[in-house]
Amino acid sequence: MKHTIIFLGKTKEAFIRTGIEEYSRRLCHYTKFQCRTIKDPASGKNDAQQEEAKRAQGEALLKAVPAGALLVVLDMRGEQFSSEGLSQRISSWENSGVREAVYLIGGAAGHSREVIERADLLLSFSAMTFTHDLVRLLLIEQLYRAYTIKAGEKYHK
Amino acid sequence: MKHTIIFLGKTKEAFIRTGIEEYSRRLCHYTKFQCRTIKDPASGKNDAQQEEAKRAQGEALLKAVPAGALLVVLDMRGEQFSSEGLSQRISSWENSGVREAVYLIGGAAGHSREVIERADLLLSFSAMTFTHDLVRLLLIEQLYRAYTIKAGEKYHK
Repeated sequence: MKHTIIFLGKTKEAFIRTGIEEYSRRLCHYTKFQCRTIKDPASGKNDAQQEEAKRAQGEALLKAVPAGALLVVLDMRGEQFSSEGLSQRISSWENSGVREAVYLIGGAAGHSREVIERADLLLSFSAMTFTHDLVRLLLIEQLYRAYTIKAGEKYHK
Repeated sequence: MKHTIIFLGKTKEAFIRTGIEEYSRRLCHYTKFQCRTIKDPASGKNDAQQEEAKRAQGEALLKAVPAGALLVVLDMRGEQFSSEGLSQRISSWENSGVREAVYLIGGAAGHSREVIERADLLLSFSAMTFTHDLVRLLLIEQLYRAYTIKAGEKYHK
């Protein structure tokens, strides 16, 4: 099974880019994995244009999702999983023949209604808000952790 | 009000050390803040000694907490806050004359009973497990975010 994270715009913080590279490298030992960066259509927009930004971002994100992919949307109001729970969910996707899972992280104003409606799973990491950059890193770390749990390895302890 | 995070052993990942330095620098513009690193008495212990490791770590952590400090213990089974909620909680501590809040992050096996019992607040970031290093970074980022929220600044959006 392949996991694809779609990044809306580049990762800004250099130390997070280093962390993303490190965990991506580790994760690739276990499964097919890629990060795809698309242009953020809302970059440079001001706060007054937030609704329009959200709509444009949603459109750009959904256009980047391949047909037939299972869509996981990160959203604070979504379902919370333990790391073990996420690992089991990934196993169950693999067992039911899912070929690709695509993960979307929202912009500053969150996801558009269209993205939320298209989601197969709304996944919440925390009731807290983290930077976009940090959420990217946390997601990759959790995917890596999920595979080490499946493999019964020591990392996750 | 002063915030002190007690680190059990050094931060292993270099990119996380960079991130911790960056967010610590930003946080220090708003409030007194320090990270104190103490030796991990359980480092090198194997899994069979987990209970003993937890007890020794708890003892070392509690010994490092100054008398009279408000004690926040990070624990997965604790209370979840939104970033705004944590910001409000910090304001209420400040308003009620708390001089120092000390934050403890547990070892691989979690916190000892003694630490849990001494806690003034059990704080949960997520149902997921993250590395020790990542939790340090997330905590500092959330403290920074809390102060930007209090200041009505744009960062947190």
